[in-house]
Amino acid sequence: MTHVRVVTPITADGFTDPGLFESIASDETTVSHVSIERGPASIEGEFEEALAIPDTLAKMLDAERDGVDAIVIDGQGDPGLAPGREALDTLVLGPCQTGMHVAAMLAHNFSLVTVLPTLVPFFESLAIRYGLIDRLVSVRSVDIPVLELEADLDRCNRALLDESVKAIEEDGAHAIILGCTGMKGCAAALDSGLARRGYGDVPVIDPMLVTFKIAEALAGIGLKQSKRTYPSPGTKEITGFDYVVREQTAAV
Amino acid sequence: MTHVRVVTPITADGFTDPGLFESIASDETTVSHVSIERGPASIEGEFEEALAIPDTLAKMLDAERDGVDAIVIDGQGDPGLAPGREALDTLVLGPCQTGMHVAAMLAHNFSLVTVLPTLVPFFESLAIRYGLIDRLVSVRSVDIPVLELEADLDRCNRALLDESVKAIEEDGAHAIILGCTGMKGCAAALDSGLARRGYGDVPVIDPMLVTFKIAEALAGIGLKQSKRTYPSPGTKEITGFDYVVREQTAAV
Amino acid sequence: MTHVRVVTPITADGFTDPGLFESIASDETTVSHVSIERGPASIEGEFEEALAIPDTLAKMLDAERDGVDAIVIDGQGDPGLAPGREALDTLVLGPCQTGMHVAAMLAHNFSLVTVLPTLVPFFESLAIRYGLIDRLVSVRSVDIPVLELEADLDRCNRALLDESVKAIEEDGAHAIILGCTGMKGCAAALDSGLARRGYGDVPVIDPMLVTFKIAEALAGIGLKQSKRTYPSPGTKEITGFDYVVREQTAAV
Amino acid sequence: MTHVRVVTPITADGFTDPGLFESIASDETTVSHVSIERGPASIEGEFEEALAIPDTLAKMLDAERDGVDAIVIDGQGDPGLAPGREALDTLVLGPCQTGMHVAAMLAHNFSLVTVLPTLVPFFESLAIRYGLIDRLVSVRSVDIPVLELEADLDRCNRALLDESVKAIEEDGAHAIILGCTGMKGCAAALDSGLARRGYGDVPVIDPMLVTFKIAEALAGIGLKQSKRTYPSPGTKEITGFDYVVREQTAAV
Amino acid sequence: MTHVRVVTPITADGFTDPGLFESIASDETTVSHVSIERGPASIEGEFEEALAIPDTLAKMLDAERDGVDAIVIDGQGDPGLAPGREALDTLVLGPCQTGMHVAAMLAHNFSLVTVLPTLVPFFESLAIRYGLIDRLVSVRSVDIPVLELEADLDRCNRALLDESVKAIEEDGAHAIILGCTGMKGCAAALDSGLARRGYGDVPVIDPMLVTFKIAEALAGIGLKQSKRTYPSPGTKEITGFDYVVREQTAAV
Amino acid sequence: MTHVRVVTPITADGFTDPGLFESIASDETTVSHVSIERGPASIEGEFEEALAIPDTLAKMLDAERDGVDAIVIDGQGDPGLAPGREALDTLVLGPCQTGMHVAAMLAHNFSLVTVLPTLVPFFESLAIRYGLIDRLVSVRSVDIPVLELEADLDRCNRALLDESVKAIEEDGAHAIILGCTGMKGCAAALDSGLARRGYGDVPVIDPMLVTFKIAEALAGIGLKQSKRTYPSPGTKEITGFDYVVREQTAAV
Repeated sequence: MTHVRVVTPITADGFTDPGLFESIASDETTVSHVSIERGPASIEGEFEEALAIPDTLAKMLDAERDGVDAIVIDGQGDPGLAPGREALDTLVLGPCQTGMHVAAMLAHNFSLVTVLPTLVPFFESLAIRYGLIDRLVSVRSVDIPVLELEADLDRCNRALLDESVKAIEEDGAHAIILGCTGMKGCAAALDSGLARRGYGDVPVIDPMLVTFKIAEALAGIGLKQSKRTYPSPGTKEITGFDYVVREQTAAV
Repeated sequence: MTHVRVVTPITADGFTDPGLFESIASDETTVSHVSIERGPASIEGEFEEALAIPDTLAKMLDAERDGVDAIVIDGQGDPGLAPGREALDTLVLGPCQTGMHVAAMLAHNFSLVTVLPTLVPFFESLAIRYGLIDRLVSVRSVDIPVLELEADLDRCNRALLDESVKAIEEDGAHAIILGCTGMKGCAAALDSGLARRGYGDVPVIDPMLVTFKIAEALAGIGLKQSKRTYPSPGTKEITGFDYVVREQTAAV
Repeated sequence: MTHVRVVTPITADGFTDPGLFESIASDETTVSHVSIERGPASIEGEFEEALAIPDTLAKMLDAERDGVDAIVIDGQGDPGLAPGREALDTLVLGPCQTGMHVAAMLAHNFSLVTVLPTLVPFFESLAIRYGLIDRLVSVRSVDIPVLELEADLDRCNRALLDESVKAIEEDGAHAIILGCTGMKGCAAALDSGLARRGYGDVPVIDPMLVTFKIAEALAGIGLKQSKRTYPSPGTKEITGFDYVVREQTAAV
Repeated sequence: MTHVRVVTPITADGFTDPGLFESIASDETTVSHVSIERGPASIEGEFEEALAIPDTLAKMLDAERDGVDAIVIDGQGDPGLAPGREALDTLVLGPCQTGMHVAAMLAHNFSLVTVLPTLVPFFESLAIRYGLIDRLVSVRSVDIPVLELEADLDRCNRALLDESVKAIEEDGAHAIILGCTGMKGCAAALDSGLARRGYGDVPVIDPMLVTFKIAEALAGIGLKQSKRTYPSPGTKEITGFDYVVREQTAAV
Repeated sequence: MTHVRVVTPITADGFTDPGLFESIASDETTVSHVSIERGPASIEGEFEEALAIPDTLAKMLDAERDGVDAIVIDGQGDPGLAPGREALDTLVLGPCQTGMHVAAMLAHNFSLVTVLPTLVPFFESLAIRYGLIDRLVSVRSVDIPVLELEADLDRCNRALLDESVKAIEEDGAHAIILGCTGMKGCAAALDSGLARRGYGDVPVIDPMLVTFKIAEALAGIGLKQSKRTYPSPGTKEITGFDYVVREQTAAV
Repeated sequence: MTHVRVVTPITADGFTDPGLFESIASDETTVSHVSIERGPASIEGEFEEALAIPDTLAKMLDAERDGVDAIVIDGQGDPGLAPGREALDTLVLGPCQTGMHVAAMLAHNFSLVTVLPTLVPFFESLAIRYGLIDRLVSVRSVDIPVLELEADLDRCNRALLDESVKAIEEDGAHAIILGCTGMKGCAAALDSGLARRGYGDVPVIDPMLVTFKIAEALAGIGLKQSKRTYPSPGTKEITGFDYVVREQTAAV
């Protein structure tokens, strides 16, 4: 059995329904879910992300103590990905990194459609960091804040379709990545919308679904992040935080 | 149920044991396997690869007619990947592309250890094509031809370990990709060898195992290659080949 | 005397008139020409190209046995370039690689105008492989299939001019590369069309003419592809093909 | 008058002597200094950096309320640079970004010599993010933890010189960046050491000194970070933090 | 005291008012200024720049003999930057290189607005040479020759504002660099124009002002160009020029 | 008939023997040669190159008035290439740009072996400017000044062979470019030396010979530099120079 923990790095209630992951999980997979309790209601920039990370790391350390096999971060900017991979020996994946790599495997290039136009440099910077900026033809936005997505799902779906068509027609996109983990569930509507408008040849990537499945896949053969890239921190005291980082073993 | 077909693009007998894939497959997955009948005994360059591709494509077209959900090419150079993705509506994955992307997700950089030193430019060129050359710190080789790997497995394992240690120490590698699909099964020995020599922090990626699991994962949520990147060929006659390419439907 | 063999990698009759090359050849050059007999009528994608390559390689091996000094591949995607360079000790050049390098020598950047819009990712991928993607500002198309170019030459010439003007005005192109070897002869019309429209400062590169002249030039001083990059294949048997690859000599 | 606030993102006592900045400040500059109170004693990885950032941001917000003209982050990994630039309208600079850009202005390439070998991927990743990876020929280390630098200054200076000479001789470095803000004061010794060993042609960049002077220079003409790149966060509540972010004005 | 010499590489009278630099100089800085006497009236291409460089170098050598601490080249193409850095031991800075690096520090990307559209490839080439092409989203122009800027300052200011707005809206620019050193003084008008039109979040970089301040800053801590990158020329005779290049000392 | 003018940008007597070009010229080609009269005896850096360019441009303008079909610059740093292409309507080629592009066509990568170690950054910068830095695996040197090459030809040949072998063995080079136009004639010796040492698979590129042949080839079909990249300068007066630049015609 493989146990995958989904960690939501914001405090907003009801942002994530674990049933979505259960519906796509393999029979051999257990899904669990937790949200942070300290941090921003939603993440729409580097400042809010920075304040979301400490409790996200605490939830990851909890997950490792619970013996999960993989952790999936439920925030599009991959908050806590690098520090979490340092702190843990358990596989940690983030939707932006995983989604972009999968898009780069399956298509010549891709576009990401996110919530707000102010996030364009944020996602371009992530693509630079992940080495995939040459494949990212555009970052577009539906211009709806994260916490209004659910209340206005129709507007979100229409805007997603319109921006995706522009990404294809004007930017030459060959695949579309949903650019906010709050858009979970919008992929099917976008897929059929694109097909109706004659763009059935452009795959839609819901990065959370893909990342969950890749987490199952990699955990299934015991692959994890390189601890040479993400070395475990020492046992140094950290004022104001009482996180227990696992002791490093000799061969880690 | 997900049906994954492994297509071996060389004519050598016994190169691939489907049992290996069955041993890592999810309970919901069926595995089938086929080798080509026309083409080289093994692939150690662009010339041999070019002559392996036509029958590899025929085997892929057969697989689509058989209704499989995903095809994994069992050759490290991904022979037939782009033409196969054009000819088929079924998901096609190759071990070099998939293995390099997974390595790039999990580690700062990676090294690939292949069979012959003459293959260095071949794999560097693939990394350029896949947009990952900046993450590939070196291509090294065990200096054993493909068809002698099995007969001399001990020498292969020793050389893999020695070259991997050099990749880590001299080239600064943070992950190792096995660089020949004939090295299937060598990952476990290399993993424990590295741990013994103090490099347990460097993951070993067997690209065939990873690609098989990623094929399961993507097929599980219906993701395929972008047909905008890989448009279906028309029904043009091709002298000397009688491949039946599926008719394109409106929405592809 | 220098003998240049032009190899046409499609089966369509009358695609190439050797007289065109004779008209630009130096007095010291002999021109010969051959088309393949097995393969697609035309190449408009990776699948058709893959099926064109085996007989293209056979024709190259024939040319080497005939003692030619250089081989020019008459297909815009350079089918068989890398495997041919491996199989032969004779200089092999392709129009896409050569044309892009010459454009990069003479201009700040360039645009390529090809036959079909579905070929955009195909040529962008070649530019990536050749290391010149940063110089390629756009791939545009006349939207006419290869085999209809000749029948509709006026439409082809008009569309070439229109797309070239857009490449200059909208994409900022400083040179135009004809993007199909079936456009042989269109360069002069495009040149004068551009001059009439006020773009006489933008050179037009007919990649086949350029590649033929570069083949003469390099053969004239004995330069060939690096056999370290393109090592000769061994004498391994290849089921279903009876190509005779020259024995490798000690010093290659 | 220009007021520059130096913010030290670690809790270790006595890490930074403000007198060093006063000694190089222009007569028209006021220097002030603060360290964080919550967070790690030192930063030697992504995990510790993540836990240092929240209080670093609090100290930056204090500095803006105090009306300073520029803030210099006193940590080599630029902790809090992007989120701080979002949260503030005041100029914020970090030593890694500024030091690398100054090195790139003055030299063909550069090497960075840091404290621990585990930080190599950390600084290479920063160079990727800052767009300067092609200029960074190597990251080397003295193999001394941050908090032992002061106690063992002689060993640090000797190792800095040895590694800098290797960076020049083996990696071809044309400039050396001190790779830990705890090495403040080591530049002069390294400069004269390099001159003695015949490398007086290689400048040594103490990134904190350079960043302090650049902060003075930019503040002197009113230049700040682009608020289009770093848009101010809204006034959303953030559970567990009581930071007061300045209200955004219309024209920012 | 720091002495900064501004060297104007064109012969046009009254192009540069040293008072501008005095108005932003620190109290501890002395400013001096000189124009060349042999060369073009203005520089609008590579040919004119090539003929401006010899006398620019003569003026730099004079400045070093006068004992200045830093030299700022007052030409947007940085004429004489590399040869001057070779010939001198004194710090030499150019506005294009310095302005682009400062823009890259402060913003996700930038646009440069220059005088003539023919200069687009010129500045793109400089960005390539300086390693910052990935950050340069566009080069735009006001379409006014250098020597007409002053006579038609209103038109220049209007065009600068219009093109900057287009750079922001159409090209996604996050910072604007003035693209001609003859635009000195236009930054304030552009700044307030952008604020009025709702783009107060986009900083305007006057590269001459920034470079002057960075020259003060670097000279203040004794930083200079790497003489390993820019080695001093020997004492070889140069027919037709009687420049005296300082003798190299052992440790340079 | 094609007339190619070789312009030597240094004043040293007897540096270039036009007979060398005549020996490889096509029967239809006329060769002429000229050296500059004002400038450095040899070029070993940016400073000397800057002082060589004005008279090189004068000799190019003379050549255009003489009606030549192509100009080849006989200096490895391509002095005057960009300004000459602006000033002239005649094809101008330089050996570094042409040689590197030909090497990139024929081999996976290349190394350049030049005269002095101080020229390493100079040639790396040219490769950056020409967009080929990713193909340049190393710049090595024989450590002999330009003007001593001829007197010590044996030492030069031995050092060329030794450094080329190191480039192949240590840097992985697949082709060697002679890195000084004063090494004309050394290619044959290096070719046979490499073959003797077992590296007959690595081509040697004498950039002057290649550039001469490419000049013939391109002039033969009327190809020239893009005047959109290299626009003709206006008729502006240039103090101290009396160069007559051809009037620009409407269509250039």
